[in-house]
Amino acid sequence: MKKIAILGSTGSIGTQTLDVVRANGDIEVLGISAGKNIQKLEEQVREFSPRLVAVWDENAAQELAQKIQDTDTKVVAGMDGLLELAAMPDTEILVTAIVGMLGIRPTIEAIRAGKDIALANKETLVTAGHLIIPMAREYGVKILPVDSEHSAIFQSLNGEHKDEVHKLLITASGGPFRGKSRKDLESVTLEDTLKHPNWVMGQKITVDSATLVNKGLEVMEARWLFDVSLDQIQVVVQPQSVIHSMVEFKDGGIIAQLGTPDMRLPIQYALYYPHRRYLNGDRLDFAKLGQITFEEPDMDTFLGLPMAIQAAKAGGSMPTVFNAANELAVSKFLHKKIRFLDIYDIIGQSMERHKVIENPGLEEILETESDTYQWIESRW
Amino acid sequence: MKKIAILGSTGSIGTQTLDVVRANGDIEVLGISAGKNIQKLEEQVREFSPRLVAVWDENAAQELAQKIQDTDTKVVAGMDGLLELAAMPDTEILVTAIVGMLGIRPTIEAIRAGKDIALANKETLVTAGHLIIPMAREYGVKILPVDSEHSAIFQSLNGEHKDEVHKLLITASGGPFRGKSRKDLESVTLEDTLKHPNWVMGQKITVDSATLVNKGLEVMEARWLFDVSLDQIQVVVQPQSVIHSMVEFKDGGIIAQLGTPDMRLPIQYALYYPHRRYLNGDRLDFAKLGQITFEEPDMDTFLGLPMAIQAAKAGGSMPTVFNAANELAVSKFLHKKIRFLDIYDIIGQSMERHKVIENPGLEEILETESDTYQWIESRW
Repeated sequence: MKKIAILGSTGSIGTQTLDVVRANGDIEVLGISAGKNIQKLEEQVREFSPRLVAVWDENAAQELAQKIQDTDTKVVAGMDGLLELAAMPDTEILVTAIVGMLGIRPTIEAIRAGKDIALANKETLVTAGHLIIPMAREYGVKILPVDSEHSAIFQSLNGEHKDEVHKLLITASGGPFRGKSRKDLESVTLEDTLKHPNWVMGQKITVDSATLVNKGLEVMEARWLFDVSLDQIQVVVQPQSVIHSMVEFKDGGIIAQLGTPDMRLPIQYALYYPHRRYLNGDRLDFAKLGQITFEEPDMDTFLGLPMAIQAAKAGGSMPTVFNAANELAVSKFLHKKIRFLDIYDIIGQSMERHKVIENPGLEEILETESDTYQWIESRW
Repeated sequence: MKKIAILGSTGSIGTQTLDVVRANGDIEVLGISAGKNIQKLEEQVREFSPRLVAVWDENAAQELAQKIQDTDTKVVAGMDGLLELAAMPDTEILVTAIVGMLGIRPTIEAIRAGKDIALANKETLVTAGHLIIPMAREYGVKILPVDSEHSAIFQSLNGEHKDEVHKLLITASGGPFRGKSRKDLESVTLEDTLKHPNWVMGQKITVDSATLVNKGLEVMEARWLFDVSLDQIQVVVQPQSVIHSMVEFKDGGIIAQLGTPDMRLPIQYALYYPHRRYLNGDRLDFAKLGQITFEEPDMDTFLGLPMAIQAAKAGGSMPTVFNAANELAVSKFLHKKIRFLDIYDIIGQSMERHKVIENPGLEEILETESDTYQWIESRW
């Protein structure tokens, strides 16, 4: 039995991780966690009987403890709870399926405890890649990407030699607004934004797909994950979401991973790497598919990508500002407090006023985050 | 220095192998060979100074020996010459770039002498895969595919586990006559047939691309090379020749190898496997490419593929009949003695009259070949 814990078990990646567990039958879930969705947590406790459940919200934790008194599962709360979950004895892999910078400290805790990380939390590497990657190396743990693009690159690199990589080609659907002009974007609504053409995902990441911030975060993450320079990463728009990403080697040969859009595949791949298991689901039918098309990303309209590259080039604490500003802006957009294009303004202005801290420690990263939040709250 | 010998150094694959040698500077060519093109052989001898040159035609061999008296290169002739080349001391890899069943005996000789085989000769596995593959295993030599489709599959399998393969997806350009009806094919000429849309290749293989016999031979070859059943091989038409082939694994994930159509890549990959070297040449530009399209092969019009599958299913000596009948039919077509569609008739009728020999030895394979030749010559 493989033993895992899941940070963020009630979200999109978390529940699909449990689908994979359910389908395979040889993975034991020792710990689960969520922000405050205790109804779903209770269901998961009753189905998977974990030893530990961590709830971020203290009140929700108390309420859950009441509800599951009849079980053997222990309830813990707050950041201490997440850290206990991350480092719990006997787990081999921590699935970090939580959204936001909240995921960083538990990830560090897990690495120190020698757990492999099935990484679905983008912020960890975006803001703290310079701390995490050397630490993973030091403790000899694997960082197994769960995001479909990074998993595709990880799969394409299988059996290849790192120094023979020429560049990474990260594919992008282009989001629901592909082809629209900046003028068109002035009037798009939240409802329009949440209609992703191919993938069913959480709301935050769906907005990030529409702004191309998501692709920007992926570029930043890929840089750390695969130890390449920013110039070695190219984004290719491929609206069908069939090629999940590619690697070009120095002989000009390209290896790509393709498939239907199903997050269970990269999740399962991370859990069983380097092995593949049967996965119940749709298969690609090329004749039915008919075509795969390619475009360059529209960097003049969808500023999420060029701003991310700018933040990555500035380095230090700037990616944290980019990420935190986007996180808060998207939250405001989801609550209909700002319009779509305001997201870019908030990110842009937050980056402009920030003075980069070189090589920031975790405390400085978290301070940069809260400083960015405060500044934005004071203006929007 | 890596040391190689080339069986068929004056043909398309042979000369491109020498391009790769020239570009890298750390491969020594100890032996070369050709049928009778002694002008090109002399040039190659003067440039690469091999120890041995084997010429199939005895008279041409004598003539070449005269011309290169001033060099240290020894000239040998006939099948004995090819066998001497195949097993010459010090070579690590034999590149079998010869066309036709002539390649089988030297390949066996090389395997017995412990040489790895960079295999570009299709007939070897098509007709004698049941002998060659166990022999390669016995002598611990690698069979490194040079054909672009098989190399793509070989590259896609890198780092993967054989028992996790679901199926191989061999791509096909569909040839110059894709979309034509059987009626259209009645009037096509040799000149039409030799216009391949993407690849520049020898004449015989270009005709085989138009009939889809080439794809049929590749299916037969893939079966031996990758130890899969015929049902695990699917042909996908992809006219741009950008995806060179793919592997679908049991989780539904597909790994593909893509690139511009350049045979030097699979040649170089075979010579340096598992490493990749820089290769001077065009790179894929996805935005410029715009699209990749997919269709099912038209098995009702292009009988080369279904007839190959039928021959492979019959097994034993039947693939030899398929291959020999095609070889002679294409030769007649290249000499304008028959029309395009007669190629299918010759193959079909040759297969129909043949009584399968189960598990044939090399002698029986060669007898089946000459018997098929004789029968065809007596009728067409």
